[in-house]
Amino acid sequence: MPEQSPFDLAEGDPFGPHNLPYGVFSTADAPGRHRIGVRYGDRVLDLSALPSALPAAIHPHAELLAAPTLNPLLAAGRPVWQQIRAAVRSAVSDPAHRDEVAPLFHPLDEVTLHLPFEVADYVDFYSSEHHATNVGRIFRPNDAALPPNWKHLPIGYHGRAGTVVPTGTPVVRPQGQRKAPDEELPSFGPSLRLDIEAEVGFVVGTPSTLHEPVGLGSFRDHVFGVCLVNDWSARDIQAWEYVPLGPFLGKSFATSVSAWITPLDALDEARTPPPARDFPLLPYLDDSAAEPGGIDLRIEVRINGETVSRPPFSAMYWTAAQQLAHMTVNGASLRTGDLFASGTVSGPDPDQLGCLLELTHGKGPYLQDGDEVTLAAWAPGPDGARIGLGEVSGRVLPAV
Amino acid sequence: MPEQSPFDLAEGDPFGPHNLPYGVFSTADAPGRHRIGVRYGDRVLDLSALPSALPAAIHPHAELLAAPTLNPLLAAGRPVWQQIRAAVRSAVSDPAHRDEVAPLFHPLDEVTLHLPFEVADYVDFYSSEHHATNVGRIFRPNDAALPPNWKHLPIGYHGRAGTVVPTGTPVVRPQGQRKAPDEELPSFGPSLRLDIEAEVGFVVGTPSTLHEPVGLGSFRDHVFGVCLVNDWSARDIQAWEYVPLGPFLGKSFATSVSAWITPLDALDEARTPPPARDFPLLPYLDDSAAEPGGIDLRIEVRINGETVSRPPFSAMYWTAAQQLAHMTVNGASLRTGDLFASGTVSGPDPDQLGCLLELTHGKGPYLQDGDEVTLAAWAPGPDGARIGLGEVSGRVLPAV
Repeated sequence: MPEQSPFDLAEGDPFGPHNLPYGVFSTADAPGRHRIGVRYGDRVLDLSALPSALPAAIHPHAELLAAPTLNPLLAAGRPVWQQIRAAVRSAVSDPAHRDEVAPLFHPLDEVTLHLPFEVADYVDFYSSEHHATNVGRIFRPNDAALPPNWKHLPIGYHGRAGTVVPTGTPVVRPQGQRKAPDEELPSFGPSLRLDIEAEVGFVVGTPSTLHEPVGLGSFRDHVFGVCLVNDWSARDIQAWEYVPLGPFLGKSFATSVSAWITPLDALDEARTPPPARDFPLLPYLDDSAAEPGGIDLRIEVRINGETVSRPPFSAMYWTAAQQLAHMTVNGASLRTGDLFASGTVSGPDPDQLGCLLELTHGKGPYLQDGDEVTLAAWAPGPDGARIGLGEVSGRVLPAV
Repeated sequence: MPEQSPFDLAEGDPFGPHNLPYGVFSTADAPGRHRIGVRYGDRVLDLSALPSALPAAIHPHAELLAAPTLNPLLAAGRPVWQQIRAAVRSAVSDPAHRDEVAPLFHPLDEVTLHLPFEVADYVDFYSSEHHATNVGRIFRPNDAALPPNWKHLPIGYHGRAGTVVPTGTPVVRPQGQRKAPDEELPSFGPSLRLDIEAEVGFVVGTPSTLHEPVGLGSFRDHVFGVCLVNDWSARDIQAWEYVPLGPFLGKSFATSVSAWITPLDALDEARTPPPARDFPLLPYLDDSAAEPGGIDLRIEVRINGETVSRPPFSAMYWTAAQQLAHMTVNGASLRTGDLFASGTVSGPDPDQLGCLLELTHGKGPYLQDGDEVTLAAWAPGPDGARIGLGEVSGRVLPAV
């Protein structure tokens, strides 16, 4: 059976020429040599070798492409992102380069994928009205489901950047304190309510200057692309610790991200207006005159191979551009590698909920040791194509 | 008037041979060349040049000492910290080296001080019972002053690492949303309740492994030293945003740290038992059989040169070792450059409160544009000496 050409993809492959997400990989013969690659079909194109195979346009960026993480590329800014994307598009589509480019592909199942960028600050939002309402009813049954600030600002908080891990990293069940309302004293042990949160992450490329807010209109100048995020959550630890300063150990043990960062430019066809707003927004958040800030990403949550939910990212109340504008309106600066996640994506329907807390109405069952959770997603692309996001998977291991 | 020898300090100088804190400086003739230095009296000893001036013991560490940040030194681990500290002690005290060492001193007022290390994750705790009680009464008048979890675990949350700035950095008054309880809708503008929080920060040197908690007894293997922290807080922004996921923009605009990191070893004489605990602690937090976990640091808060408070760090309910044990008990790993701060230090007396919210019973006045805030501290050292911490200062600039 002759090997299929790397340039010929199956009809409808979600990693076609309109996608071209970036990641970092290594091969078995050089496991310590982390290289930047672009996923094309079921192969990885080695970008570190691309400048020597392509005409001159990409040569000035050879140093960025030889880095062991995406950070230098992220820092280079949007014009460079566009130049490199055009060159990669040419590499996979232009027959003139095939002889030089063909040897640069590695089968996906023969490479090891790594955390694609060094995370600077990690922020997690809470921007699905359906999720916030459902969780409010479960966690705070005596209060209004949505806190009074919820529709005036995208609520967010900082998470632990040092425990962001790439897809495939096992998640050891965390230990910690929990106390049920009817217990007198807290107890300690492995979390009994280990959960997932299906989220979409946004990766900051271009940094910003301290004291200079990044307005809605500058979103694309700073944000490079999108990944999937599983914000693993120990609900029993979280419930006991989070008042008054927010989640801490209930979240900080692991946050998994996909190995592929899909450029924003690949999602142009998927832009969609966010839901109608119930309150007029303060000017720095008012996107009524801006380009559509939502993204029509269809997420799928699988546990041990079985699809348990299909959360629609288009239902998010707050957009990523609003999150970025809010995060910087106090003058806080952005750094290359900042990651901000959407918060759990839940839709209005019972089969669209992004975590087990909601899917089981707070009653469980939660994750068992050995369970494997996978998040997948795709968005509509040009000409009926699908733009696939890299999957994010993780298996639960017993507490140690 | 002959210049005083750098080796002769005034009686009782708080930066004497028992202190020797580390920082990063540059000089006017090479402003881009950041170098590691040790403060001695009112001078800075250039450690990057020390290996060439001292006998062989320190030579293997020349590369660490030539770095532009403390991070490589922090990562090297406690045995190396002790070797370098011994060498620096010898450099400033042993007459045999004076001719070689004397030229390596720079007057403190002729150098520029920088952020001494790259901050990995920043965590802020809430570990003063007096502060938490006072704030609870002001922010949550209808609830118990202390939340039910407070005496069972050191409450903490992640802050923004990217906006940790060194002493001397101006703090621009942040803008943001706020809503008073009697207002129907939020408004936007410069914070009207800009506050300080006097805290002590702990700098992690040796990283830890994911899934491996760092117990109380391993504190000194991981924590390198101590600095002062001003956790600037916009109370109006914070009050409106912080339910349910904790402080975000009310804190993320700036966190100031002192330029000098005092090694833990310099604070041995200042170790003191923490206050008696009101509840038995879970084993991972139970320090009743451990070495005294408190530190007798006497902090001074000055606004425009006037001392407004003297918070005693010895009054903190939770110790730094307990904070570290808690932060990692869920398996979260530490990275070199992690910074965790104590939370506002307040004592029981009205002149021992660590923020204006408490000092003014929530009524203000808060900081005015142009105000300069300075935190200073010292601890008892050997033979009656004082160990000074580097001051942390910042001036409030008007909103932009």
